[in-house]
Amino acid sequence: MKNTAIYPGSFDPVTYGHLDIIERALKVFNKVIVAIAHNSEKATLFSVAERVELLKKATKGIKGVEVDDFQGLVVDYVKRKKLRIVIRGLRMISDFEYEFQMALTNRKLSKDVETIFMMPSESYSYLSSKLIKEAASLGANLKGFVPGFVEKAIKAKLR
Amino acid sequence: MKNTAIYPGSFDPVTYGHLDIIERALKVFNKVIVAIAHNSEKATLFSVAERVELLKKATKGIKGVEVDDFQGLVVDYVKRKKLRIVIRGLRMISDFEYEFQMALTNRKLSKDVETIFMMPSESYSYLSSKLIKEAASLGANLKGFVPGFVEKAIKAKLR
Amino acid sequence: MKNTAIYPGSFDPVTYGHLDIIERALKVFNKVIVAIAHNSEKATLFSVAERVELLKKATKGIKGVEVDDFQGLVVDYVKRKKLRIVIRGLRMISDFEYEFQMALTNRKLSKDVETIFMMPSESYSYLSSKLIKEAASLGANLKGFVPGFVEKAIKAKLR
Amino acid sequence: MKNTAIYPGSFDPVTYGHLDIIERALKVFNKVIVAIAHNSEKATLFSVAERVELLKKATKGIKGVEVDDFQGLVVDYVKRKKLRIVIRGLRMISDFEYEFQMALTNRKLSKDVETIFMMPSESYSYLSSKLIKEAASLGANLKGFVPGFVEKAIKAKLR
Amino acid sequence: MKNTAIYPGSFDPVTYGHLDIIERALKVFNKVIVAIAHNSEKATLFSVAERVELLKKATKGIKGVEVDDFQGLVVDYVKRKKLRIVIRGLRMISDFEYEFQMALTNRKLSKDVETIFMMPSESYSYLSSKLIKEAASLGANLKGFVPGFVEKAIKAKLR
Amino acid sequence: MKNTAIYPGSFDPVTYGHLDIIERALKVFNKVIVAIAHNSEKATLFSVAERVELLKKATKGIKGVEVDDFQGLVVDYVKRKKLRIVIRGLRMISDFEYEFQMALTNRKLSKDVETIFMMPSESYSYLSSKLIKEAASLGANLKGFVPGFVEKAIKAKLR
Repeated sequence: MKNTAIYPGSFDPVTYGHLDIIERALKVFNKVIVAIAHNSEKATLFSVAERVELLKKATKGIKGVEVDDFQGLVVDYVKRKKLRIVIRGLRMISDFEYEFQMALTNRKLSKDVETIFMMPSESYSYLSSKLIKEAASLGANLKGFVPGFVEKAIKAKLR
Repeated sequence: MKNTAIYPGSFDPVTYGHLDIIERALKVFNKVIVAIAHNSEKATLFSVAERVELLKKATKGIKGVEVDDFQGLVVDYVKRKKLRIVIRGLRMISDFEYEFQMALTNRKLSKDVETIFMMPSESYSYLSSKLIKEAASLGANLKGFVPGFVEKAIKAKLR
Repeated sequence: MKNTAIYPGSFDPVTYGHLDIIERALKVFNKVIVAIAHNSEKATLFSVAERVELLKKATKGIKGVEVDDFQGLVVDYVKRKKLRIVIRGLRMISDFEYEFQMALTNRKLSKDVETIFMMPSESYSYLSSKLIKEAASLGANLKGFVPGFVEKAIKAKLR
Repeated sequence: MKNTAIYPGSFDPVTYGHLDIIERALKVFNKVIVAIAHNSEKATLFSVAERVELLKKATKGIKGVEVDDFQGLVVDYVKRKKLRIVIRGLRMISDFEYEFQMALTNRKLSKDVETIFMMPSESYSYLSSKLIKEAASLGANLKGFVPGFVEKAIKAKLR
Repeated sequence: MKNTAIYPGSFDPVTYGHLDIIERALKVFNKVIVAIAHNSEKATLFSVAERVELLKKATKGIKGVEVDDFQGLVVDYVKRKKLRIVIRGLRMISDFEYEFQMALTNRKLSKDVETIFMMPSESYSYLSSKLIKEAASLGANLKGFVPGFVEKAIKAKLR
Repeated sequence: MKNTAIYPGSFDPVTYGHLDIIERALKVFNKVIVAIAHNSEKATLFSVAERVELLKKATKGIKGVEVDDFQGLVVDYVKRKKLRIVIRGLRMISDFEYEFQMALTNRKLSKDVETIFMMPSESYSYLSSKLIKEAASLGANLKGFVPGFVEKAIKAKLR
């Protein structure tokens, strides 16, 4: 139970920043379940099925990764999986606050779930799926932000 | 005039964090007017009338509280009431900035209105109406976040 | 090339804070091109043509200012203009983070473009177009925030 | 008891920022006790007696101010005075955190003491006794930062 | 190797905040080595030997804890122990920045060491050894901040 | 006058972060004067003469750089040089606040001096002279933080 962690998020779509966190998490845990949330309220660019597919493709070569999706609260999903460790990446101050707020709320919702934070490489410290989609819609080259096939998928969606 | 303060906000809906600030404010002032803003632009879960009702119920046992609602600028409302003191709760950094921006704007709009900030208990330092509604929509138990009848009202709305 | 800088933004509408940055920038550069972005995604109060007109009127007396508008990425616009220096105003912490994220993204998109940050007068440190529009919609007097003709334009729009 | 507040600090020496907070506090409370802490650990430029004298001179014209000094914890001093309200000025983020930490510690030490925060004018938002002393030691003109007689006292000390 | 983590720090002295992090860490790892740094530059209240003793006493009942001390860089110590995971507690923004700076420096010094961050209970979110020593020197009751025997040790030192 | 800027600081000693800012500044200005402050109050590892020497050596190959040192206020030095532009690097939040406080104080001391901020490469976003000296005293390899001859100079000093 202690050697598997869940890395939940929107992953709309997966970026090099997410992949960096996944690889770092695998130095700490034997298995990492990347879990895509169904956010009915947030408008996403990609459907859950598409995000699962992109993540699977992006993590293909990496041992110990499982891609999943879930509905409802993270803490309930974690408990259904009989696990207790949640990983979150921390990039910047606003991250920090939102993440703390989420982690404290999750802790209140379930005392058994513990959130740990990991830092991406400083090269990815400013990357966000939101910014990338915005840049793409303005015609940016996404090399260095996301894998090539993710860039293609974004551009296809935006067309 | 100095012993009455106005505590404005959206209160969509009232949380234990708001109630904590109200009780602290009553250590400093004899009377606290909790004033619900009509935000025509922000989509709210509860109508102004519903929010007034929930706040009245939640503050029933507390002496010195009055629940009201207002349209237009806070500073204009404060002046119509012939008062000058505005209370705001400060939780986290992003609060801090938004609150400072608001307070400085209000000060520019009226030199007579003074904003004072109070800190909720650290147990409520991460509570926000927004997060609570989000958690509720995902099926969370809201005990410890809001009074029982508020939880019921949220769940009824979301159904 | 080094004595001309581009000051990009939404300018929806221009505020005294923007004008303060423009005047400060002219102490450092001989020419400042104020460049209004076509944000297809963000809902703006004024059209690009209106924002250009308001900015032209507001900067009429100031030597060395050119008003322009652009589509696509800032870095691509800067390169089309054969320039390399971008100016951004920095007000508060949240600014700071968003601006850093933007600047680092722009740097990744083009190594030739360099962003420099300038600080408005502390009198304008809390001013934002968003807050001004919100205040105006609630009936606020905008004197001290924007020039008189901008206030008129906002009120006409909101009516 | 509710119309008197204590404004504790080092006041080494008093600045226009402190005076601004005192005048704002008097819009909220009938009486403000400015209380100078004996910080045995911090090296101060002025002795407690000198700081009391400078503060008395600086607040001479202001009705409702009392200057005092205290040893030990702020909360113990507040209780000895049979009061419960502590005022602190909030300038910037680092302030915010330090002040929150102090306020939460004080709250733990005594549940009866409540800290409220007030914001100085944005013109004084960057003023600190430390920066002023540093600037003075480098030969700065302190007009606009502190009253004339405080500037003289600082310069006499530094000579 | 993945189920043991090192929790380095000054622990001058151990607080309930540290103990909270240790207990949370043991939900994630089978073994946690609490490692006291010899900071030749920082003046400490307690010697390394005393800090080791206080930590051993404080963690006596907790399974999976080992107390150690080290000289030199954290990353070198981690490698000497043939481990790779460092735990740090994150309380507030200033923490966040200092911790990130440290973690990135450590990462540069050794690519094999990974830092993970954990959040103490919000009840301890403001606790710091420094503030506790300051409060103690002013006569504060430290109940709720540190175990009873640590309070005694602090008071004995300060006398 | 507009194509020369002053980059003041302690430079105790120069790091790759400083050099990165200098090179970026030279994309904006034809000449950059790196000006080492005589901080009589701060204890430095290197004397002013040594810091000048290290900076000269580190910037030898870079066209348009002049190394100087100054006593007193930055704004007075800038005016003595008949210049008006000050450059500062911005790394992290604490930087941001300190820098803003300094810049606003300098602006108050002299309306003619304008501070502009530049961002180092994210690879150097966490570098500080202080951290480097601390790491060196614990035996760290400084490759990637400072040029080789600076590392040698630090190690010689610390021996």
